[in-house]
Amino acid sequence: MIVTIEHAAGFEPIEQVLRCCDEYEASLNLTRDKRYTRIRITVDQAYSELFVRLKSIVGVAKVETTGKPYPLAAREAKSAASVINVRGIEIGGSDLVVMAGPCSVESREQILATAHAVRAAGARILRGGAYKPRTSPYDFRGLGEEGLQLLAEAREATGLAIVTEVMSIADLELGAYYADIIQIGARNMQNFSLLHACGSINRPILLKRGPSATIEEWLLAAEYILAAGNEQVILCERGIRTYEPFTRNTFDVSAIASIKHLSHLPIIGDPSHGVGKAELVPQMARAAIAAGADGLIIEVHPNPAQAWSDGQQSLTFEHFEQLMNDLAPIANALGRQLNPNVQALVVS
Amino acid sequence: MIVTIEHAAGFEPIEQVLRCCDEYEASLNLTRDKRYTRIRITVDQAYSELFVRLKSIVGVAKVETTGKPYPLAAREAKSAASVINVRGIEIGGSDLVVMAGPCSVESREQILATAHAVRAAGARILRGGAYKPRTSPYDFRGLGEEGLQLLAEAREATGLAIVTEVMSIADLELGAYYADIIQIGARNMQNFSLLHACGSINRPILLKRGPSATIEEWLLAAEYILAAGNEQVILCERGIRTYEPFTRNTFDVSAIASIKHLSHLPIIGDPSHGVGKAELVPQMARAAIAAGADGLIIEVHPNPAQAWSDGQQSLTFEHFEQLMNDLAPIANALGRQLNPNVQALVVS
Amino acid sequence: MIVTIEHAAGFEPIEQVLRCCDEYEASLNLTRDKRYTRIRITVDQAYSELFVRLKSIVGVAKVETTGKPYPLAAREAKSAASVINVRGIEIGGSDLVVMAGPCSVESREQILATAHAVRAAGARILRGGAYKPRTSPYDFRGLGEEGLQLLAEAREATGLAIVTEVMSIADLELGAYYADIIQIGARNMQNFSLLHACGSINRPILLKRGPSATIEEWLLAAEYILAAGNEQVILCERGIRTYEPFTRNTFDVSAIASIKHLSHLPIIGDPSHGVGKAELVPQMARAAIAAGADGLIIEVHPNPAQAWSDGQQSLTFEHFEQLMNDLAPIANALGRQLNPNVQALVVS
Amino acid sequence: MIVTIEHAAGFEPIEQVLRCCDEYEASLNLTRDKRYTRIRITVDQAYSELFVRLKSIVGVAKVETTGKPYPLAAREAKSAASVINVRGIEIGGSDLVVMAGPCSVESREQILATAHAVRAAGARILRGGAYKPRTSPYDFRGLGEEGLQLLAEAREATGLAIVTEVMSIADLELGAYYADIIQIGARNMQNFSLLHACGSINRPILLKRGPSATIEEWLLAAEYILAAGNEQVILCERGIRTYEPFTRNTFDVSAIASIKHLSHLPIIGDPSHGVGKAELVPQMARAAIAAGADGLIIEVHPNPAQAWSDGQQSLTFEHFEQLMNDLAPIANALGRQLNPNVQALVVS
Repeated sequence: MIVTIEHAAGFEPIEQVLRCCDEYEASLNLTRDKRYTRIRITVDQAYSELFVRLKSIVGVAKVETTGKPYPLAAREAKSAASVINVRGIEIGGSDLVVMAGPCSVESREQILATAHAVRAAGARILRGGAYKPRTSPYDFRGLGEEGLQLLAEAREATGLAIVTEVMSIADLELGAYYADIIQIGARNMQNFSLLHACGSINRPILLKRGPSATIEEWLLAAEYILAAGNEQVILCERGIRTYEPFTRNTFDVSAIASIKHLSHLPIIGDPSHGVGKAELVPQMARAAIAAGADGLIIEVHPNPAQAWSDGQQSLTFEHFEQLMNDLAPIANALGRQLNPNVQALVVS
Repeated sequence: MIVTIEHAAGFEPIEQVLRCCDEYEASLNLTRDKRYTRIRITVDQAYSELFVRLKSIVGVAKVETTGKPYPLAAREAKSAASVINVRGIEIGGSDLVVMAGPCSVESREQILATAHAVRAAGARILRGGAYKPRTSPYDFRGLGEEGLQLLAEAREATGLAIVTEVMSIADLELGAYYADIIQIGARNMQNFSLLHACGSINRPILLKRGPSATIEEWLLAAEYILAAGNEQVILCERGIRTYEPFTRNTFDVSAIASIKHLSHLPIIGDPSHGVGKAELVPQMARAAIAAGADGLIIEVHPNPAQAWSDGQQSLTFEHFEQLMNDLAPIANALGRQLNPNVQALVVS
Repeated sequence: MIVTIEHAAGFEPIEQVLRCCDEYEASLNLTRDKRYTRIRITVDQAYSELFVRLKSIVGVAKVETTGKPYPLAAREAKSAASVINVRGIEIGGSDLVVMAGPCSVESREQILATAHAVRAAGARILRGGAYKPRTSPYDFRGLGEEGLQLLAEAREATGLAIVTEVMSIADLELGAYYADIIQIGARNMQNFSLLHACGSINRPILLKRGPSATIEEWLLAAEYILAAGNEQVILCERGIRTYEPFTRNTFDVSAIASIKHLSHLPIIGDPSHGVGKAELVPQMARAAIAAGADGLIIEVHPNPAQAWSDGQQSLTFEHFEQLMNDLAPIANALGRQLNPNVQALVVS
Repeated sequence: MIVTIEHAAGFEPIEQVLRCCDEYEASLNLTRDKRYTRIRITVDQAYSELFVRLKSIVGVAKVETTGKPYPLAAREAKSAASVINVRGIEIGGSDLVVMAGPCSVESREQILATAHAVRAAGARILRGGAYKPRTSPYDFRGLGEEGLQLLAEAREATGLAIVTEVMSIADLELGAYYADIIQIGARNMQNFSLLHACGSINRPILLKRGPSATIEEWLLAAEYILAAGNEQVILCERGIRTYEPFTRNTFDVSAIASIKHLSHLPIIGDPSHGVGKAELVPQMARAAIAAGADGLIIEVHPNPAQAWSDGQQSLTFEHFEQLMNDLAPIANALGRQLNPNVQALVVS
């Protein structure tokens, strides 16, 4: 990275940069003219930590890394793609990971039945909402902590890891206590206080793209979490808002390919929200994988017609199993595996 | 409003509804068949309070009011438009109210100079950001409480009321301590936890439209605040995200006219964010007023080229004065007044 | 403007440029280096004609004018705003011009009644569709030449000028025979063959913005007509396609202000298509004028509920009269006149 | 389909409907009450021809088929998906068909080299523009008839079929003389005169989706061609206009899946225009196929950096070959074949 210091800032910031570099065993090269001092730094460890430290030195005009505004999230920040490990499941590696489950946790029967069904079909992570962001204040907003407890119970019963959404800083600790992955929903993608707080949570964050966020804004939202200290960010494309009324959103499959070019972070696709129609979910799941997604998150419900939320886009157990069967050969054609060792997933 | 109770729910909820109605001196009419009991209620006071009470009774299947999903925000909820009083300034009445000031509070000199200038030109409320939502984690995020203190100092010096943005529940109390109006920014329009918390704050809320929110979603966000107990909501159109690159956003002037048809809440226009180009702000300010806005919020800076944020869309003192002079005759042509009694605004 | 010729092109193009400049009495300054010859030209007449001539010389690499990609439509191409004269009515001058009438010409009674009513209320130009672009092939597509004849009859009876849409090159001649202004509809804004053909028609062209055209694309569409030889282009903002479902389109009022900054061409607003709801048309008509529009085009029908097309957005005679009465004081507040000399409009 | 005739229309239209049905050997059932006569018709042949005939009978109030506004394009109009045969190549069958070639025909060398290269890699149809729709009137607009002749020459040399765009009715006959498939470009998707004229051309029409067309509007545009008598329509998704700036358009992969649900017409994907970046084309080509596309159209150029148009999104020969190799196993995983019998394509 390159640090720029204006002449008027004096020697103090220069000294601090040098000390910092020593601390991280970084090598450097310094040039100085009448207006600027520029220090080019190479470091083999803790790149992002050093970046944030240098940024914070008073008198440092700018710290440039990749030319991209999101230095920590950018492809160039790492030599290889990030792989995030959740209870032994690798997200971003060569295996595709499928998360599945209902929109909302509704009851013990519902969540346990769904957990068993999706695990049998090859899913490795269970989704389920305990805190639901609802457009109307009068809609069902989730079971709260009771929902979290039911998710934890389903994990015990099946060995599936748990992903669930948290909507406020106040609920973050509780969410992290029960769940393995914390989801930040689309509407909170630019809730910067919440993003910042996610930086100090010891859980991977599943960061959904905002309904009208550009790819750059999305990566900058990820950058908030990375810069605050949490390197475990998984991106999730879930459709953007366009003029088209036939689909609930426009599932931006090209964003998946774009992220793979721009960032080292893993990305999964959410075709359920992406199109909002169960009958189109299988084709869009395939398309997401074909475009390079590292996994999927799919809404599955024992009885979609009776779901308390998002029934129209939820698959039945049967349709989910069919989808998984159809995906496997496509994954293979792409040189990836879909859930190769289900047997190894026995409850420990 | 109409309360529906399913037969299976028994007599308990019916009794509670009747008691509630007695408490509010509401008159009612009850019909009952094999499946449902329906109670039609007329009340002359505290309509929204009663609505929320009835909603919360266990066993009540639904409470319908206007046919619109936002019963409290809907035009039909009140016999007249809402007028919100802030330190003697009426927003939503026949006078137009102009809020003006810098994007960010940067220093004592900057905010005081701006406060005096915008007051002299006819503004009645001072805007200024102490907590700034920034797309990048590396941008200036505001002076925090120091900024709030400077705003309060500017109020003392000029008599202007203060509006400022709050981004998290944690800062809400502090914001309400210093400011007269709390702004919820566009990116937080669906931060439902924050909206809910605004319901218990004794300050009017300036609720900006989300960058890709529909008019209905916006009114539902207002409904969150109303349903949580705060009836003082002012809406603010600030441009929506479209494909057009020439303007920063597309300032949806028709949303102003639409809100006037759909809701009793006051609405103001923010042409500065709406178009993002200072040279177009005057025409768009006029257009907002012509479409029925109850006021404006305008970014003004002593030296826009040096502003720490949003310089491109900020007016100089001179251009702001020119804008106010040009607006006055248009206000009159519409049967409204722009700041008729500046003299009465002397510091008390 | 600046002409650039590559060295490899030899002397032939240079000589031709010089001859061309002589012909137009243009003064020039030539610089030449190892790679390029650059000729800076100043001309007092027929700027656009000369521009197109120079462009067409073989060996000329480029002709730059304003730095904008639409040199003829750009503000800088002319010292003053263009004023287009239609049967004595000036569009783009200080008077505002209102065009009004039904979406489709349906019958003699309908068009004559409407013509008399809108003329009495202050409109100066009658609109009416004889060829209708319809999304479905099964919808009413207009009366064709019979419709044009009825429009001409209405002109005889009222003295109003006529504007009507033409959808294909084949109908252009007939349209120009009957009508005073030819409208190119939104869906044909990038029908480049049709635009080119409009260049050789001796009638002003009312060029509507395409439903998802950027401002730059719109001005480039105007440039097609200007470059093909017709300098009489009037732009018309009619709403763009966004995600918002409440209004038929999003009426981009800021495009009106933007065009006034970018181009010398007159622009009018079409609030009827812009919002698609009659109840919002009056406010949006005011907003368009306040943003700087040179006029309006409004749909008016004797009985909107019975209209063969666009009934939802058409005003009754009474509402149109009311709108015109409300607009007059706003026009005055902006230093413009709305129809000052109706009396002078008696049939000649 | 169901024909409705109002009572007031008398017996004449009823008689004509019955005669029509006899002519097409259709069976029918008639019901009649005081207001309407309704005739339910079943026919085994020429469904669309009969539909249009019945529509045109004076006195027939409506002819309903599927409940969809595009009865001829709707899934329900046919018992199986349409397969369109172009010089022995089946589009819409189990084989995937790839069309490839440069944006514009630039020279004999360019088009011949490209034709040989794409044929060797497995493409079966050659694309190339002779008439180019250009946003600016000053850009290269294609070689015209010379371009068509070069395409025909390339067909002779390679056996590839030819697809090329036509922009106006005037050029339609010439286009059909030289090319095997006529492309209607995105900007002309609602050029209804041109669509109607395509109805009488004996060539398949490749109908691109307009840049902001809904799926329904697109199918209605197809309906124009079908209703005018040409049943050979191939749809092509090429990206829609959204707020996202990273990609040229947003390639709406879900539209491919949607069309497969709504219509019997074949659909191909154009990832080159869909994303506008060569480096994303391979992933998006895969995604289109995975979502159910019947084929692809890909821009390929001998030297993209020197292309006269669309260089940024064109693949080199080498990258195109790579893409085709990568697609084959995905096609197989989906139960389809990508160009299984190249050897059979020898020039006849």
